[in-house]
Amino acid sequence: MITRQKAEDLKKRSMQMLETAGIVITDREYSKMETVDCGLGIPEAIGLQIVVYENNDRYCAKELIMLPRQTCPEHRHPPVSATNPGKQETFRCRYGEVYLYVPGEPAKKPKAVLKERKEYFTVWKEIVLKPGGQYTLPLDTLHWFQAGDKGAIISEFSSTSSDETDVFTDPDIKRAPEIKEQ
Amino acid sequence: MITRQKAEDLKKRSMQMLETAGIVITDREYSKMETVDCGLGIPEAIGLQIVVYENNDRYCAKELIMLPRQTCPEHRHPPVSATNPGKQETFRCRYGEVYLYVPGEPAKKPKAVLKERKEYFTVWKEIVLKPGGQYTLPLDTLHWFQAGDKGAIISEFSSTSSDETDVFTDPDIKRAPEIKEQ
Repeated sequence: MITRQKAEDLKKRSMQMLETAGIVITDREYSKMETVDCGLGIPEAIGLQIVVYENNDRYCAKELIMLPRQTCPEHRHPPVSATNPGKQETFRCRYGEVYLYVPGEPAKKPKAVLKERKEYFTVWKEIVLKPGGQYTLPLDTLHWFQAGDKGAIISEFSSTSSDETDVFTDPDIKRAPEIKEQ
Repeated sequence: MITRQKAEDLKKRSMQMLETAGIVITDREYSKMETVDCGLGIPEAIGLQIVVYENNDRYCAKELIMLPRQTCPEHRHPPVSATNPGKQETFRCRYGEVYLYVPGEPAKKPKAVLKERKEYFTVWKEIVLKPGGQYTLPLDTLHWFQAGDKGAIISEFSSTSSDETDVFTDPDIKRAPEIKEQ
């Protein structure tokens, strides 16, 4: 859970990054920007900000905004039903640098630095995305990612997004955002 | 049909617009950039440039780059099969200005200016998209669009793209690109 004041602070800083990158969002998109802390209460370490451009029953497009060294925690998108094999997604770095981790040969000197809940990050094959860099994740694959020292903006193109079916490695994570009004 | 030299010229000018807008593409994406003239041979009037970021069996993401006053001609995406109701698409203006036309009450003073093949543009309800502006098209709907005086860059988010099933109003249009080597 994070306070309304913290959420507003994260949104403001994300907006500054969007402006630096030359990416325009509407006032309505700003007001609806998600500040995801996964229920851990340490959003500057584990969390990210999300602007959903479109999410319909066929495809989804979002902008993910990550402050310096913010980390999206390890998770996967399992099959949802007999006809839905789970969310498929493509990450495209627009600004900054992203360190993306998937199953495979672990990086010897990973660029990501974890100070919190490191035990819940289990895959360490490293993919470095710089602006123009892009990666499409195989289905139902564990992944996590961290922004570099300047932060990062990532366009996510995907099939329909239904965050509530995501499976996180960290048992304490709650995906639905909780903001404490005070 | 356009010459290789014209195609290279259109690509270079498109690249300059991408750079102005702060959008990075890779060398490979540049080399594969499509210069679409629809077989009419007047690409600066009717045509556009396309970078396909991802097109898989569930979703597609492209960047559409339009030089000043370039026009994507009128077309629709009809149902493809019993299980595929046709391409659904969302346009998001990233740079410049776009005048998008769909069926409905015709604009009294449309912002688009047509000098070529005007008889094949039949829908005139106007939607103006500026950076951050976005529009999701109803299925199987006739549409066409023109960039403003600065040109335009449009992110297209969609279901799977299969251009060969598009239906154009202009009977002389061929969607598959033809470049004359000389």
